[in-house]
Amino acid sequence: MKASQFLISTLKDAPADAEVVSHKLMMRAGMIKKLGAGIYNYMPMGLRVIRKVEAIVREEMNRAGAVELTMPVVQPAELWQETGRFDKMGPELLRIKDRHDRDFVIQPTSEEVVTDIARQEIKSYKQLPKNLYQIQTKFRDERRPRFGLMRGREFIMKDAYSFDRDQDAAKASYQVMAAAYRKIFDRFGLRYRAVAADSGAIGGDLSEEFQVIAATGEDAIVYCPDSEYAANMEKAEALAPTAPRAAAQAAMKRVATPGKSTCEDVATYLNLPLAQSLKSLVVATDVRDDKGAVVKSQVWLLLIRGDRSMNEVKVGKLPGLADFRFATLAEIDEHFGCEPGYLGPVGLKKPLKVIADREVALMADMVCGANEVDYHLSGVNWGRDLPEPDLVADLRNVVAGDASPDGKGVLAIERGIEVGHVFYLGTKYSKAMNATFLGENGKPQFMEMGCYGIGITRLPAAAIEQNHDDKGIIWPDALAPFTVVLCPISPDRFADVKAAADTLYAELLAAGVDVILDDRNERPGAMFADWELIGVPHRVTIGDRALKEGVVEYQHRRDTEATKVPVAEIAGLLLSRLKA
Amino acid sequence: MKASQFLISTLKDAPADAEVVSHKLMMRAGMIKKLGAGIYNYMPMGLRVIRKVEAIVREEMNRAGAVELTMPVVQPAELWQETGRFDKMGPELLRIKDRHDRDFVIQPTSEEVVTDIARQEIKSYKQLPKNLYQIQTKFRDERRPRFGLMRGREFIMKDAYSFDRDQDAAKASYQVMAAAYRKIFDRFGLRYRAVAADSGAIGGDLSEEFQVIAATGEDAIVYCPDSEYAANMEKAEALAPTAPRAAAQAAMKRVATPGKSTCEDVATYLNLPLAQSLKSLVVATDVRDDKGAVVKSQVWLLLIRGDRSMNEVKVGKLPGLADFRFATLAEIDEHFGCEPGYLGPVGLKKPLKVIADREVALMADMVCGANEVDYHLSGVNWGRDLPEPDLVADLRNVVAGDASPDGKGVLAIERGIEVGHVFYLGTKYSKAMNATFLGENGKPQFMEMGCYGIGITRLPAAAIEQNHDDKGIIWPDALAPFTVVLCPISPDRFADVKAAADTLYAELLAAGVDVILDDRNERPGAMFADWELIGVPHRVTIGDRALKEGVVEYQHRRDTEATKVPVAEIAGLLLSRLKA
Repeated sequence: MKASQFLISTLKDAPADAEVVSHKLMMRAGMIKKLGAGIYNYMPMGLRVIRKVEAIVREEMNRAGAVELTMPVVQPAELWQETGRFDKMGPELLRIKDRHDRDFVIQPTSEEVVTDIARQEIKSYKQLPKNLYQIQTKFRDERRPRFGLMRGREFIMKDAYSFDRDQDAAKASYQVMAAAYRKIFDRFGLRYRAVAADSGAIGGDLSEEFQVIAATGEDAIVYCPDSEYAANMEKAEALAPTAPRAAAQAAMKRVATPGKSTCEDVATYLNLPLAQSLKSLVVATDVRDDKGAVVKSQVWLLLIRGDRSMNEVKVGKLPGLADFRFATLAEIDEHFGCEPGYLGPVGLKKPLKVIADREVALMADMVCGANEVDYHLSGVNWGRDLPEPDLVADLRNVVAGDASPDGKGVLAIERGIEVGHVFYLGTKYSKAMNATFLGENGKPQFMEMGCYGIGITRLPAAAIEQNHDDKGIIWPDALAPFTVVLCPISPDRFADVKAAADTLYAELLAAGVDVILDDRNERPGAMFADWELIGVPHRVTIGDRALKEGVVEYQHRRDTEATKVPVAEIAGLLLSRLKA
Repeated sequence: MKASQFLISTLKDAPADAEVVSHKLMMRAGMIKKLGAGIYNYMPMGLRVIRKVEAIVREEMNRAGAVELTMPVVQPAELWQETGRFDKMGPELLRIKDRHDRDFVIQPTSEEVVTDIARQEIKSYKQLPKNLYQIQTKFRDERRPRFGLMRGREFIMKDAYSFDRDQDAAKASYQVMAAAYRKIFDRFGLRYRAVAADSGAIGGDLSEEFQVIAATGEDAIVYCPDSEYAANMEKAEALAPTAPRAAAQAAMKRVATPGKSTCEDVATYLNLPLAQSLKSLVVATDVRDDKGAVVKSQVWLLLIRGDRSMNEVKVGKLPGLADFRFATLAEIDEHFGCEPGYLGPVGLKKPLKVIADREVALMADMVCGANEVDYHLSGVNWGRDLPEPDLVADLRNVVAGDASPDGKGVLAIERGIEVGHVFYLGTKYSKAMNATFLGENGKPQFMEMGCYGIGITRLPAAAIEQNHDDKGIIWPDALAPFTVVLCPISPDRFADVKAAADTLYAELLAAGVDVILDDRNERPGAMFADWELIGVPHRVTIGDRALKEGVVEYQHRRDTEATKVPVAEIAGLLLSRLKA
């Protein structure tokens, strides 16, 4: 490609609404162009990156035996009504009406349509397993679209769906996909982690997120540097401390803590470690009748250490707490006779179930609210001052330094951007849509499903969050819009420069290198700034003076200085670097 | 690809709503699957064809210097309001509202968005010319979607838009595209014609349709077998007869024609050639004020020969007739004092402008209505019985045998399916959206535009309309979902068959051939029927008996019989056939 034929359009400043670095750099590098909130034109420079992502994904999906198809962007509501999602999903599902006033949706994902295809096409166990995927435009009407391609409304996703005859086969299909995803992410050339994720109501461990590591990532990733363990924050287990509960040393004492309603304030005020205090969280569950009316409610007290944070996913998995909510002030008053800020498990007005975090169950000489405004209790001890908890469970988010659940070291935490997800679905959709096949025993069986997504347009943004400096983007070779840029200096004045650039360009093209020749006749400073912003990884500068010495200048985007390379060796050097 | 890994799903019968052969065959071959009216899943077998179309189009567009980008499917209404199309377009423009009640459209085409991009990105004449294109999902909410991918609601289109500094440059860009389209259509391997088309209000001759020839085509294509001339019916000029007007031979006579209100009935009743009769068509135009109210109307009489049909596009191009309509009964009565069926240009109640077709102006002894129910006039002659017409013009559709407008023979007519269009737009959109650039003189100038479409998903349907037989589809090599299919007979029973098939499969794959190995263990009859229906052009059958003779059987989809080919030669034969 010659730059003059391409559309290169860099900006000195990012628009004011670009908050994160990938959004800023993609706008400045002319890769995307905003058309509306969360809706972007993929400009030529950006589309080249997206196409490279697509090509790698497609190649590995095909290699893993998945079969590509394309499902419509505009989908009739009927199928979405079959699974109930037409009504259940919020306004992020864009609902539309056609000229005949019939309901449609713009696909945010395609479980319904693919399950409809499978129930028609797959009649026998002999046709299984099957994995169908598409790389297609999706739309989610986000309430607050932002961060450019990171959280857009219109985006491109690769969504794959596996169909299997039984759970074992489905798990094997899942593993095939998980392995394919590792290959895909390896090929992208990004630092990433595949982390165990919560699999929701379906249960089991078959859910992994593929997270691109970036300091600016939205998600906390928990991993063990000494083992393979990695999970997202929702999923990562906090083990019980191995040391037994210390013996009580202090007597329980009612202490004034005027206006101190947080654990931090109380610990500071009493000059005690925060780790000695208890956080009392009051939640409730409702029992509803057929019509959804609340028949009765139950209140629970959750206790975690003052320096910890509650993990809502873990709490939601406890028996009876699947749909928990925080208790109302009335409910709190009913059980504690006190307002929040001074609650505690000792001396309840009306008894309730107490669930202690694993750590809390082993604490001694604790500090907690006295169920009286402006007072706390110190020196509180299990068994002596209050009964042992009704249940001991993992209620909290892990922190760096916690023991790894696999027993192989301690946990570290870094941040990531989720760009892929593999997920075992079970029969959730096949049951809702009656997608059966005839099993080997001649009887209809529900298909076991899995789903597997990759955010095709999100990935370039994540790559940039991970790989940039103050000059601009630094693409890995596999994702770069062009892998090599040739920068002839004043080719209009120096015939030898033009000739050398043209020769090298032709040679690289013939070798299949994705090269761009900057023939715009820009000044070197502006030209270099453009390519550093755009992030092309390999640059060759061809200048008259250097040519007279028989050399050109090579610089990798991460290099601080250029290296002189004999003209005869530059093509070879580039080819060997690109292969590496 | 191995068939067992792919999704092959053929049907014995087409669904009842499939009317045309391409729709039937694409459904039966499992290439598409209906999701709703005019909305189809592109199934794996069909998607492969679509991807091949895309790849050829993309390669030639890039080669012609066009630059690919992707514009959103969901587009904010504001830009469509700028050009007025948001209000002007009918319900085929699918309008939607997002969660904030803001208006959007699903793109049916992208002139507005691309012009918006150009007016921001292109500042100077130095950046011109530019040609931007996308291959992207479109939606047109057709009132009556039908014929499968031929007239769907959701479809894929390649739409390109050129931007130039002046008309000459725009015309050059147009010619580059027209040439690229010829290369594209040549590569598809289809019989097609590029036909001159009407360019609407913009004028000029820069509009060509690319029509795939098919007996079932919706459009009539006019061409000259002895020259390069080709045009669509709207555009094809009917020359004036070269012979002068014959002398009057008959006297004008009022003849009773009871109940005979059509030219055909009158000619039969009077036993005169239909070509001697006149068809009187009464049209009107309205002059409107600023608010759109009709200020005054004018009525016109158009005369064409009784055996001809009126060409509305040609009539609309006559001075003053741009927005003509057919006259009302009241207007007809006002000028003719008679009801339709017996109208004629002689003895008008109130005078009006008479426009005669070129043929009509040279007729003698004509038959026309007498402006009296149940009566006609015969022996009517210009000059003697009525004044010469106010205007003589080309008003009619050409017929086969008419002289070619280029003077090089006579016209023939065949039918075609429009799958591409190149069109010079001028400044229609750049003026509406104020898309200017700084010209060489430092002053802002409107961009000159062109637009260029190819119906990516329509093309496979057109290819099938052209290439099929009673067994199924016959793909040209370039479009086939697979170019070669290997059919081993009972490979589970004959190890040599399996081995030979696997060896040939590996050899062809290594040579880059798009081959599928049918490893489904189907009976030969069912297997052959599937591949004949799907239309893979080259088939190799590998059977135990033939292998013992050292041969396999090759059959092109158009061959009636298979040919025995030595095992050692089959790969070479296929490769040479695929190159040809």
